[in-house]
Amino acid sequence: MTLPRTATTFAPPVMEARRWLEGVAFPANRPLLNVSQAAPVDPPPAPLREAMSELVLNDPAVHLYGPVLGLPALREEIAGQWSAAYGGEVRADRVAITAGCNQAYCAALAALCGEGDEVILPVPYYFNHRMWNDMAGVRTIPLPCGPGLIPDPEAAAARITPRTRAIVLVTPNNPGGAEYPAAVVRAFFDLARARGLALVLDETYRDFDSREGAPHDLFREPDWDRTLVHLYSFSKAYRLTGHRVGAVLSSPARLAEVEKFLDTVAICAPQLGQHAALWGMRHLGEWVAGERREILDRRAAVLEGFPRLAAKGWELRGCGAYFAYATHPFAEGSDALAKRLVREAGVLLLPGTMFFPEGAAEAGRGLRIAFANVDRPGIGALIDRLDGVTP
Amino acid sequence: MTLPRTATTFAPPVMEARRWLEGVAFPANRPLLNVSQAAPVDPPPAPLREAMSELVLNDPAVHLYGPVLGLPALREEIAGQWSAAYGGEVRADRVAITAGCNQAYCAALAALCGEGDEVILPVPYYFNHRMWNDMAGVRTIPLPCGPGLIPDPEAAAARITPRTRAIVLVTPNNPGGAEYPAAVVRAFFDLARARGLALVLDETYRDFDSREGAPHDLFREPDWDRTLVHLYSFSKAYRLTGHRVGAVLSSPARLAEVEKFLDTVAICAPQLGQHAALWGMRHLGEWVAGERREILDRRAAVLEGFPRLAAKGWELRGCGAYFAYATHPFAEGSDALAKRLVREAGVLLLPGTMFFPEGAAEAGRGLRIAFANVDRPGIGALIDRLDGVTP
Repeated sequence: MTLPRTATTFAPPVMEARRWLEGVAFPANRPLLNVSQAAPVDPPPAPLREAMSELVLNDPAVHLYGPVLGLPALREEIAGQWSAAYGGEVRADRVAITAGCNQAYCAALAALCGEGDEVILPVPYYFNHRMWNDMAGVRTIPLPCGPGLIPDPEAAAARITPRTRAIVLVTPNNPGGAEYPAAVVRAFFDLARARGLALVLDETYRDFDSREGAPHDLFREPDWDRTLVHLYSFSKAYRLTGHRVGAVLSSPARLAEVEKFLDTVAICAPQLGQHAALWGMRHLGEWVAGERREILDRRAAVLEGFPRLAAKGWELRGCGAYFAYATHPFAEGSDALAKRLVREAGVLLLPGTMFFPEGAAEAGRGLRIAFANVDRPGIGALIDRLDGVTP
Repeated sequence: MTLPRTATTFAPPVMEARRWLEGVAFPANRPLLNVSQAAPVDPPPAPLREAMSELVLNDPAVHLYGPVLGLPALREEIAGQWSAAYGGEVRADRVAITAGCNQAYCAALAALCGEGDEVILPVPYYFNHRMWNDMAGVRTIPLPCGPGLIPDPEAAAARITPRTRAIVLVTPNNPGGAEYPAAVVRAFFDLARARGLALVLDETYRDFDSREGAPHDLFREPDWDRTLVHLYSFSKAYRLTGHRVGAVLSSPARLAEVEKFLDTVAICAPQLGQHAALWGMRHLGEWVAGERREILDRRAAVLEGFPRLAAKGWELRGCGAYFAYATHPFAEGSDALAKRLVREAGVLLLPGTMFFPEGAAEAGRGLRIAFANVDRPGIGALIDRLDGVTP
């Protein structure tokens, strides 16, 4: 008997981790340090909230259906800002708006793959990508990463089969924190193009990249849209997680396919979120730059604090944007350790087992630390607490 | 070569119909009558907009992620109001919130069906159900309807195979307008239960049912949740289409499967929409009752006006909630006629071909009229215009 689609995959890791907190008391002098989820914990800045509040009162359009592929003005704004940021020409008909970047991934895969097709995914991977692949009947072909958690295009080439439809990269990476060098991204693009595959490039965290300027040159290719499927999220930069707005950029023909999926699974992305994203893009450039500086300072705090842990056998595999990915020195598996850290250290983080296929040996050592929500003193406390954990 | 999922289905009908308007001018004394989409054209009432505006300014939670299965208070409110409205016991752990009712359908099917499974769907069907079935690799088994567009449980029983996983009913029906008698709904439930299938019951339009009281007694069954998957939308009653809020009710085990799908495709339903739905449920009962009276008056206007068309060979097959479904007397197919009606009558509606499998003979005669957005004078004008169409 065929399994229902959802039975082919696992339960949502973030919700599972949240259940580890049940029944655990955290003393007032040592509150929970929650580094399990990559999500802002504060609302958007006041001027954006005021603009949204005004729209809710006075613009009927924010309450009604809009076009399936998104608000035309937002598609135009993205096209203009992307053209400027990456160099090259991005037109509005290459842009579609989704209800969050997860949905952008699902829509892209639906437009690329059928039952039994394959996509190549560097490991550790973002678990929702794996979950969607499973539910879509797409085989995930894991691609082990080298030093710094950077994937190797040649290793990917060796994994291409007649069923391969796409290579998926996330940069800056979730969960690894790696910022993929432009030359690596370019090499993957060239590989995908040469082999007739799509390169799905998820840049959800690009606003927090430590490098200045464009992180790759793919949009400079005149026919970038034939190979590239670029994904973006408005959730992080503008703190709009609860409003569900993301984007997918590719060719008009591919977006006509994406439109079928979005029409059926969403009808349209939430209108208020789209208007908020547009307002943010037009007015919050400086504010986002400040947010980036703060995240980069938190990243620096992790890098400065980590040597104390390294002295005890921990290893920092990657650190960038919202995430640090580390391996621990203990005998137990990361899954058991993560649960123990809740009780013994008041720290909630996700174990490597959630980012690898079942049974992968590496998974037992890794831990993802989503440090972006924790300020510098908090990161100091996090290092202290991890330092105090005994085998 | 396997087709990508989206290549297995057709383009969104509502977007396609919208393109028929391109380049057509409508004179000021005969503006377009758009009866193509079932959607409010006005924003929510002022008190709800004010409540939402206040939340945007002052409640950080409306901007942040929430639980995958929805806002606990909204799940509780639905459980309480459903228990009262239908009789029987509906608990909050039987309720999940989705980003619209389309998504509720997709999630339900993902939890019920795998590649190659079958669902039985009365025709004419809601096209987004067909589209999702196609993209999910689920075979749609069309179930012809009898008089009044009411489906027959015995005819459904004859179509059950070892691959059948569910029977899907929409009542009041889109596109047919039929309000399924409680005994018919009960017979389908009994059939589904006896054969180990799910009954997916989409009650998106139940707030505009012309009958008083509960439209069926299924929630009175102690173990309703093992067989029933009930779908609902907040878009129509509270005019929240742009905010994307719907619900799916079933067993906790099935909702744990739904949670995997929602986590991956949406993360969570938009928070502001969920808070708005909750506010609406708590404060707008009287207002929704007034909306219902208005829709029922529009339905009456269709019923009163139709005899003029019937005299010319039109037939009203069903009329209820937002929809009338009619057959026309002309030689051309409904697809050609629908395009001609835009140019010659200034009327945009959807042809039967969009609600039937390709090649179905019946489809060529049918037209869906989504009359809910048109007031009594507008419905008079609609009848006049259709009456004036020549073969």
